[in-house]
Amino acid sequence: MPKVVDHERRRAELSEALWRVALRDGFDAVTVRSVAQESGWSAGALRHYFPDKAEMVLFAMDLVVGMAQDRVQELHAGGGDVPTAEALQQHLEQLLPLDAPRRVESEVWFALVALARSDARLARRRQEIDDTIRGSVESVVMVLDQIGRLEHGRDQDLETRRLHALLDGLVIQLTADPPRLTVDEARAIMARHLADLAGQRAD
Amino acid sequence: MPKVVDHERRRAELSEALWRVALRDGFDAVTVRSVAQESGWSAGALRHYFPDKAEMVLFAMDLVVGMAQDRVQELHAGGGDVPTAEALQQHLEQLLPLDAPRRVESEVWFALVALARSDARLARRRQEIDDTIRGSVESVVMVLDQIGRLEHGRDQDLETRRLHALLDGLVIQLTADPPRLTVDEARAIMARHLADLAGQRAD
Repeated sequence: MPKVVDHERRRAELSEALWRVALRDGFDAVTVRSVAQESGWSAGALRHYFPDKAEMVLFAMDLVVGMAQDRVQELHAGGGDVPTAEALQQHLEQLLPLDAPRRVESEVWFALVALARSDARLARRRQEIDDTIRGSVESVVMVLDQIGRLEHGRDQDLETRRLHALLDGLVIQLTADPPRLTVDEARAIMARHLADLAGQRAD
Repeated sequence: MPKVVDHERRRAELSEALWRVALRDGFDAVTVRSVAQESGWSAGALRHYFPDKAEMVLFAMDLVVGMAQDRVQELHAGGGDVPTAEALQQHLEQLLPLDAPRRVESEVWFALVALARSDARLARRRQEIDDTIRGSVESVVMVLDQIGRLEHGRDQDLETRRLHALLDGLVIQLTADPPRLTVDEARAIMARHLADLAGQRAD
């Protein structure tokens, strides 16, 4: 089936070109024109795959979800049967823009959130992504409970929502230009939050 | 100075028209065209005041900041000399989209954050607004300390940043369409967060 192979190869080529532009110039610079130039395709040929920015956001979002899931899987594959509190903090940090590739990922997420307000297709995808992140945060809270790092009496559902909101807020502050938080501040905030969930006193 | 009076009156007229559109249809529906129609002005006359959406976002943001400050002032004027923990929670809730007018305010803030990524003027204004909110959150954390509701040993700067990020995240989740949080859930999250700052155990 040479046609299918071609199609897959072309998508891979486009993914790489899109990602190079985003890593070099930020996700706002990702347009049909700039990705065409980077990939050596004509804008016309590219528009066959991506008629507009919304389609590029959707495509980039698929890439991002795949990469984040790979990282989380790798993280847990490296550890033993029972995750440590440190591994769970690292799990959550995979969702924060703490280095260049994750910064681009967060910019893609933010573009999706902003465009979802006026585009029903993007709104549906945003909901799916939010559900995925929610599920990821929910599993972290559950495992914290299993390893004795969730204080007795905490409402798991409420703590999941609170942690999810905190993550979203950290993404907003970290992707501001210039950033409103340093990477170290974001890590310290996350560590303090997990200490609170464990019921650890501050002094 | 009849010219100045005219100018002020026109701005007031426009503010009311803009606000009526935003409350009725959401801030995404605020355009030069829709506000012109609502105010009975021609689009050409309106463009004299607002050449584009960015100018309307800036104008609406000024309205929003004024309204939020009035509410916070009113809140504290009503109480005694020493604010209660409840008054401080209500202070923070003034920054969350928990009713229709505050929902529009958050939509304006979110439009500013999204557009600030590609517009230097809006980026500066976004920084000013972020500084204002940061200052407001900082004062809440300081007063919590003064009234004995900040656990000994907490880092005030870190707790200010964490609370600010949480507020931003709650705004994102509450202004999603459909909302990802109910008003009651957002209030419960804020209450649990303040309990953690006070070092109150969950059980």
